Amino acid sequence: MTDVKGDRKARPSEQDDPDLYLRVVEKNSRGIVVKGAKNHITMGPYVDEHLVIPTRTLTKDEGDWAVSFAVPADADGIKIVSRIVTPRPRIALKAPYNTFGVADSVVIFDNVFVPWERVFMCGEWEFAGRLALTFAGFHRHSYCGCKPAVTDIILGATALVAEYNGVGKSSHIMDELTELMILAELVYASGIAAAAKATKTSSGIYTPEFLYSNTGRYMAGINIYHEYDVLASVAGGLPSTLPTEEDWLNPELTSDLDKYIRRKPDVSAEKLHRLYRFISDFSCSAMCGWAQYAGVHGGGSPVMEKIGIRSGYDIEGKKKIARDLAGIKD
Amino acid sequence: MTDVKGDRKARPSEQDDPDLYLRVVEKNSRGIVVKGAKNHITMGPYVDEHLVIPTRTLTKDEGDWAVSFAVPADADGIKIVSRIVTPRPRIALKAPYNTFGVADSVVIFDNVFVPWERVFMCGEWEFAGRLALTFAGFHRHSYCGCKPAVTDIILGATALVAEYNGVGKSSHIMDELTELMILAELVYASGIAAAAKATKTSSGIYTPEFLYSNTGRYMAGINIYHEYDVLASVAGGLPSTLPTEEDWLNPELTSDLDKYIRRKPDVSAEKLHRLYRFISDFSCSAMCGWAQYAGVHGGGSPVMEKIGIRSGYDIEGKKKIARDLAGIKD
Amino acid sequence: MTDVKGDRKARPSEQDDPDLYLRVVEKNSRGIVVKGAKNHITMGPYVDEHLVIPTRTLTKDEGDWAVSFAVPADADGIKIVSRIVTPRPRIALKAPYNTFGVADSVVIFDNVFVPWERVFMCGEWEFAGRLALTFAGFHRHSYCGCKPAVTDIILGATALVAEYNGVGKSSHIMDELTELMILAELVYASGIAAAAKATKTSSGIYTPEFLYSNTGRYMAGINIYHEYDVLASVAGGLPSTLPTEEDWLNPELTSDLDKYIRRKPDVSAEKLHRLYRFISDFSCSAMCGWAQYAGVHGGGSPVMEKIGIRSGYDIEGKKKIARDLAGIKD
Amino acid sequence: MTDVKGDRKARPSEQDDPDLYLRVVEKNSRGIVVKGAKNHITMGPYVDEHLVIPTRTLTKDEGDWAVSFAVPADADGIKIVSRIVTPRPRIALKAPYNTFGVADSVVIFDNVFVPWERVFMCGEWEFAGRLALTFAGFHRHSYCGCKPAVTDIILGATALVAEYNGVGKSSHIMDELTELMILAELVYASGIAAAAKATKTSSGIYTPEFLYSNTGRYMAGINIYHEYDVLASVAGGLPSTLPTEEDWLNPELTSDLDKYIRRKPDVSAEKLHRLYRFISDFSCSAMCGWAQYAGVHGGGSPVMEKIGIRSGYDIEGKKKIARDLAGIKD
Repeated sequence: MTDVKGDRKARPSEQDDPDLYLRVVEKNSRGIVVKGAKNHITMGPYVDEHLVIPTRTLTKDEGDWAVSFAVPADADGIKIVSRIVTPRPRIALKAPYNTFGVADSVVIFDNVFVPWERVFMCGEWEFAGRLALTFAGFHRHSYCGCKPAVTDIILGATALVAEYNGVGKSSHIMDELTELMILAELVYASGIAAAAKATKTSSGIYTPEFLYSNTGRYMAGINIYHEYDVLASVAGGLPSTLPTEEDWLNPELTSDLDKYIRRKPDVSAEKLHRLYRFISDFSCSAMCGWAQYAGVHGGGSPVMEKIGIRSGYDIEGKKKIARDLAGIKD
Repeated sequence: MTDVKGDRKARPSEQDDPDLYLRVVEKNSRGIVVKGAKNHITMGPYVDEHLVIPTRTLTKDEGDWAVSFAVPADADGIKIVSRIVTPRPRIALKAPYNTFGVADSVVIFDNVFVPWERVFMCGEWEFAGRLALTFAGFHRHSYCGCKPAVTDIILGATALVAEYNGVGKSSHIMDELTELMILAELVYASGIAAAAKATKTSSGIYTPEFLYSNTGRYMAGINIYHEYDVLASVAGGLPSTLPTEEDWLNPELTSDLDKYIRRKPDVSAEKLHRLYRFISDFSCSAMCGWAQYAGVHGGGSPVMEKIGIRSGYDIEGKKKIARDLAGIKD
Repeated sequence: MTDVKGDRKARPSEQDDPDLYLRVVEKNSRGIVVKGAKNHITMGPYVDEHLVIPTRTLTKDEGDWAVSFAVPADADGIKIVSRIVTPRPRIALKAPYNTFGVADSVVIFDNVFVPWERVFMCGEWEFAGRLALTFAGFHRHSYCGCKPAVTDIILGATALVAEYNGVGKSSHIMDELTELMILAELVYASGIAAAAKATKTSSGIYTPEFLYSNTGRYMAGINIYHEYDVLASVAGGLPSTLPTEEDWLNPELTSDLDKYIRRKPDVSAEKLHRLYRFISDFSCSAMCGWAQYAGVHGGGSPVMEKIGIRSGYDIEGKKKIARDLAGIKD
Repeated sequence: MTDVKGDRKARPSEQDDPDLYLRVVEKNSRGIVVKGAKNHITMGPYVDEHLVIPTRTLTKDEGDWAVSFAVPADADGIKIVSRIVTPRPRIALKAPYNTFGVADSVVIFDNVFVPWERVFMCGEWEFAGRLALTFAGFHRHSYCGCKPAVTDIILGATALVAEYNGVGKSSHIMDELTELMILAELVYASGIAAAAKATKTSSGIYTPEFLYSNTGRYMAGINIYHEYDVLASVAGGLPSTLPTEEDWLNPELTSDLDKYIRRKPDVSAEKLHRLYRFISDFSCSAMCGWAQYAGVHGGGSPVMEKIGIRSGYDIEGKKKIARDLAGIKD
């Protein structure tokens, strides 16, 4: 979906280079030829087909940018430039978290041909914004489910490290954990509300209520850094200074490092190594940087949700309440 | 519901004065005699009957405090000590907001007799906590509906005063208004989620999901002062320094006060007087103080919702997620 | 200082009514005649003289509004329209807090004559902004001292009510109290920094560093509502539902109200009545509304401090740091 | 300074393993022998000597842990286990930020001999806490200077990326930048206040005021994650999805990647690559994880500053203010 967008103050038709939003450069009897690039395409190298839609509202003279289609991932003229992020490799302390990474990509369309039967929109500029927002609505709704799962991990790791340190029942720790619960559940509740208030479209599928998809995604987006902060605060400095696994496996050091990582008597050194190493890999790593950025921007940044929320909000109705209570007649 | 509670560190049975939680002092063949007081009884003077329930969990030796009943509001031995809060009176600029006040009361039960047919609980200490929490759950759920309506008023007044001042479209004003929308809608969404996830009880009625009733009420409770802050910030200092209506009605001053309150050319002085006077009465008055305290504590303070939320939360399940990802076997 | 300002989107010279900023309407050999009004003049009725300065920067064609002078408080043509705020009156439970109120006023200048020897600025538009900012700098610096004193009261009341309730040592209470300490001391520290970095002016007096006067005042302004929230949260609902002193003095009720306000055994009922009544009068009253608004807007609203802070800030220097670290040559 | 500390609920003398706080295991005529480990020793591998002090207050029977000394970094029995963090390597787009890394270490003392002339404390348990706090006070004061420099980088990068994107003057961007200014300057102001209120010790040196060293360090510590959030929010998702330098240097891709990174017409593609690559390396990397943890915990976590602040605070004095205003006599 996301075009590279060039100068943020200029519309698609106002850019120096018209390709900064993906567009139709040729139409013929068999199909269309498109040019441009899509950014932030997570998992781009894994897909069978690219499904392309516009990224924003368009105006009457921007029909060339109103284009949607599906095309095989390896069609002629497509380049997928990936940036992969992998968790730190493990030697002996294998862990599920360290098994899978993620890939984002820029997908470049260099005069790619698409046959008509795979073209879904071509020139209908008046529907571009609606298509973009429909996708955004579903995407943000899905975040109301998946983001609380990230909070679950943060909450679980925070609770576990507090337990291992012997402070799991401390009042201020319980308070921090409860804040994480509330964050997760408010996002999830907003997702439930979006589903409960969904509307049936003419195609028969239901569309989640846009307002609540956005309030939930917004709440998640503005709190993700705070959630990592809670984990870091409770975990202490060790996730950033923990000796490497290589050192831990070094026979000259193993017993020392086991001795000095000890916490509560009934928690083994290996468990402590595993937990701190996990927290380090999860919250003090390149992969964490990726997750923080994705937590803010994935599915639309908080500022986009704010725009979405207020664009459809009945402010005039609220002003009327104030006027009525104040005895102001219009 | 709310007992006066005495020393907050002591249980009902540990208080110097056993009446600090309402209790049964006598049982006979016809009924029971109760003694104690209930605090914060909003609208107490208006009711036909007092419906009394315990305020907390009790232990085996606290059966005397496990009492629930209904009794006519003017039964022998009842004293209702009310504190009324009224909006500022108006002379000429009548306004619906200034029409109705509110009353809270301490209801004192000084050896009040209740016949058996109106006694619902007497000694069943093991159900006291459940009864208290059931009430709390419904009450907090209702707050998920009524508190957003308070935010509606704050949002409407903020938007209207910004419009009258000519800054209604300013970016930072729009941002403040959007935050109010999000607060209101997250609370409401949590209420919808509580309803969507309600469970049917054996009596046939539905109980809203306790978790989401609490997250919504919590969100409202921790933000109410902030919401008044937003209104005050946008309204400016005038709600606190606005000349009185008496002065405005004084022929020597009317034209001066009309002249100098002027803002955007198309908004009449009377509208401005009415709006600023409303904002003053709503947000800079004794009645506002009442509303701020009610916004924090009504239906249970945020700290009570935190306790409610974490008491039933599956923290062990979240720790298990962390252990699994970290490769920790138990 | 503060003009009534009319349409916030229009400059002094662009208002429909030129008097919406106080201005010179006549100059003659003996002096000047001024017209307009000043708003939010706290303690206006108590002064011997009004000392008037412009409220903002002006342009070349706005010399008529560049006027500063002193004039006796009761000079011909001056009307002081006051709004007084008084603490709740007490009958038997006399308390220092309830002794003094406050007055704000609109001071109207209806063609007031000022002799030349009391005119300090007349037409020097290029110094209007500097004069306004100089006043603002001193005023905001003084807030760095006086606002922490308000926090002291809130902190003391919060700590005392927690002690009387028997929860003074609770971890979450200590945490809330510590946050109040930090707020107070950061504001005060910013004031110390402004003094330590003061610059000597050619007149011989020192001017506190504008940046730190503003950061301190800003910190106070954005937190005042939060501070009242902390007090309300810890005090519970009683400040808003406490029976009146009249009821407490009623012989039919005194012993009941004494009995049921009881908390820790060693705190007398009178002390509890006095403390809750004070917290009610201080934080749940019209006078509190005044204090909240003054806490946000007195000396300049937070948004004004933000403008002051960034207007003189070396953003280009910070960009250069980023460019240097990034290896970007310009 | 920092011991490994074992079970956080147990004192040094209560640990299963007495070495979990570094201690004296032997004294003889020539000197002492120590055993234990110090954690989080930043730059440990670079020092000529280790200067060791206790990490906390001790009791009468904990004299063995009251030990302070200096010892050559490579003395017999010392093992330095380092964890190094390096910025991402660069190929062609060399940048100062990517030149230097950082190293933390566990320094293990395995029966290390220290001659008497290099022992500064041995058994004087009553001064252990004072020594630890003195160090903490200086360390936190230094943070009041160095942390604002981190904010300077974040502020500069945020302002620069906003400028390159063409939104540098947008109201909401200016607002975010101003918040960063305020954070940096309040921390710095607290440091100035600590210096201005420093007290001269008998040795002749000055000790910064502990209260303000702590309030400044606290403010920095609770906001570091928020500051990265601001940068991420304004920078957008690109720092996490930017193609690698290898891809950019690949002749098949250079022109595409230059074309599609374009923003404002007057900013070269290389500048954009450099800036986004810097922001990625600075805020979306393993090194960023290190900096976030250091920002929270370096010099003492926020919870430690809270303890420091309230431990010396005159709460009783503030309660007295409340009692006086309320008319409560003791």
